Amino acid sequence: MTGPRYTPLVASLPETVPFVGPETQERERGTPFRARIGANENVFGPSPRAIEAMQRESAEIWKYGDSTSYELRHAIAAEHGVAPENVMVGEGIDGLLGYLVRLVVAQGDAVVTSDGAYPTFNYHVAGFGGVLHKVPYKDDAEDLPALLSKAAEVDAKLVYFANPDNPMGSWKPGAEIAAQLGAVPEGTLLVLDEAYVEFAPEGTAPEIDIEDSRVVRFRTFSKAYGMAGARVGYALAAAPLIRAFDKIRNHFGMNRAAQAGALAGLQDREWLEQTVEKVAAARGRIAAIAQANGLSALPSATNFVAVDCGGDGTLAKAVLAGLGARGVFVRMPFVAPQNRCIRIGAGTESDLDALEEALPAALAEARESAV
Amino acid sequence: MTGPRYTPLVASLPETVPFVGPETQERERGTPFRARIGANENVFGPSPRAIEAMQRESAEIWKYGDSTSYELRHAIAAEHGVAPENVMVGEGIDGLLGYLVRLVVAQGDAVVTSDGAYPTFNYHVAGFGGVLHKVPYKDDAEDLPALLSKAAEVDAKLVYFANPDNPMGSWKPGAEIAAQLGAVPEGTLLVLDEAYVEFAPEGTAPEIDIEDSRVVRFRTFSKAYGMAGARVGYALAAAPLIRAFDKIRNHFGMNRAAQAGALAGLQDREWLEQTVEKVAAARGRIAAIAQANGLSALPSATNFVAVDCGGDGTLAKAVLAGLGARGVFVRMPFVAPQNRCIRIGAGTESDLDALEEALPAALAEARESAV
Repeated sequence: MTGPRYTPLVASLPETVPFVGPETQERERGTPFRARIGANENVFGPSPRAIEAMQRESAEIWKYGDSTSYELRHAIAAEHGVAPENVMVGEGIDGLLGYLVRLVVAQGDAVVTSDGAYPTFNYHVAGFGGVLHKVPYKDDAEDLPALLSKAAEVDAKLVYFANPDNPMGSWKPGAEIAAQLGAVPEGTLLVLDEAYVEFAPEGTAPEIDIEDSRVVRFRTFSKAYGMAGARVGYALAAAPLIRAFDKIRNHFGMNRAAQAGALAGLQDREWLEQTVEKVAAARGRIAAIAQANGLSALPSATNFVAVDCGGDGTLAKAVLAGLGARGVFVRMPFVAPQNRCIRIGAGTESDLDALEEALPAALAEARESAV
Repeated sequence: MTGPRYTPLVASLPETVPFVGPETQERERGTPFRARIGANENVFGPSPRAIEAMQRESAEIWKYGDSTSYELRHAIAAEHGVAPENVMVGEGIDGLLGYLVRLVVAQGDAVVTSDGAYPTFNYHVAGFGGVLHKVPYKDDAEDLPALLSKAAEVDAKLVYFANPDNPMGSWKPGAEIAAQLGAVPEGTLLVLDEAYVEFAPEGTAPEIDIEDSRVVRFRTFSKAYGMAGARVGYALAAAPLIRAFDKIRNHFGMNRAAQAGALAGLQDREWLEQTVEKVAAARGRIAAIAQANGLSALPSATNFVAVDCGGDGTLAKAVLAGLGARGVFVRMPFVAPQNRCIRIGAGTESDLDALEEALPAALAEARESAV
């Protein structure tokens, strides 16, 4: 009995995990975190109307979800002024990125992203045998001209660009992005990840003709809508690309209560606006806490703030560990020089109290260990 | 602008949909069904404890689900007397089948199933470029000896066998399956789909050493646990195969409320037992309704009953259409001679009242149109 014969590609893949979840870390440390502000979750939670819709639909969970996410898809289309045929609802952006990579990336195909950008995208590309070409960040931001130029050089099938970006929180004006679409190489698809765009200044989302076949954009209910655990995201793109998802997606893969919650959340614009305000206030407090500790916070258009610890990756890692030991769960960028920072989520007052208490000692300890 | 360059495999795939959902059908007919008993859902619903857990966790949905489904996985392991390392929780059996096929099926690889068995498995195999070899049903049941023999003949990487089976509801004693494991060819993995096994007589689930690398079994919370819309299933297998899922799965793909609901549902054994009794009673009533209309119901160990309409697929299709026109949603097998039947789900009393009312006229109409 030799067991299953995996594909050569699968046999070559490592058993990696893109992220270690906070629950796993809590089990390892034996006690819960005081502040869970490391996974870019939205601590202010979903609209009460979304919660109510999910609770109501929990009693109807014996039914499969609507395989076409009809109502949600129509509401999203109306929100964006596009046709329902331009919207694909899926199991979070993570799930949709997996489908997209599967649609276009065969083994050996070139894909371009930034060195240090979203690891789950890279995980999917590796998982389908794509070859990743990485472009460095420029001034702590993803560098679209360099990404497009690299895409042309390597004949990339996909080029990933997040606006705002994770993990640094940077953003570019939408007009600047729209002006560069002419530089998207023939046969390359620009993957515009807008997971955090609701937190960003007006005009951050570029105006792009929805039938422009050079671009697919991704949005989510995980961030501004506060529903990370529900797993609802969507793609906006030209109708032929949206139809292509139907060739491979898990048609009955959506949680029924999540569909209902997303629909209700989308309709509560007031809650969204309040959330965005609360997040902005929390970003301000994080920056103030950083400053009080002699650190600088980078500008952010997201629900997290990259805080420069003033040293290298080793120092930042030590700060992160010190915060963790004091019950404050945060994460940090993977790649130099961005890994001089830690990434702190917009927390509640209580979360940020915990941060404020823990940071001085964590910092002192880290500096000591770095000597 | 030519748009994205799809992989040659994807370009070759049809834009098929394994099933048209009842919501889609309702929109087309302009009115809801009276009885939704066509999708093998469990109308008796989940344990009230599961509903309560999902409702509670809906308020915590801002957090991603635990990427390791730790608590649920450990509870499942205890339930089956295996180690947590032998359990992979995933987005329903559909999602897990997709992962499994991706793990082992490269383009051109042979896969064996029964002609007329679960279409979503076939959808995944086609989606990864596998070559399906189909074995006919024997006496309205999947024919394991013939499946294994075909697997040897074509050097299959996977052989799919559902026990009990869908769409006919047949089942084999577990001992009979266990006795045939020696005939699983070297390098072939037996995919034992036990989605409906909780409804089946004691002893239907074979005793198989969990570290036996020839077999992977699938279970779900969609059927007996009444949580189809939650999307929670699991694989039971040797630890190395379970670990392999970690190479490709969507690690943060599980809905957080669904994880909590499944855990609570698993712990309510009494509700499960009551459900199994209600389903058995409903099967009995379906058989009685069939008999009263001069039709015969096939034996079933599931939550649906295949009813032989006494003609060919055209007649059965007309009966199905007649029931649908009268507000009773059912489905039917795709392949002859099984498509002489319609597949009727174990409904509530009210659902089966609707069936009882609708069937005589649907049948008369169908017979008339068949003349």
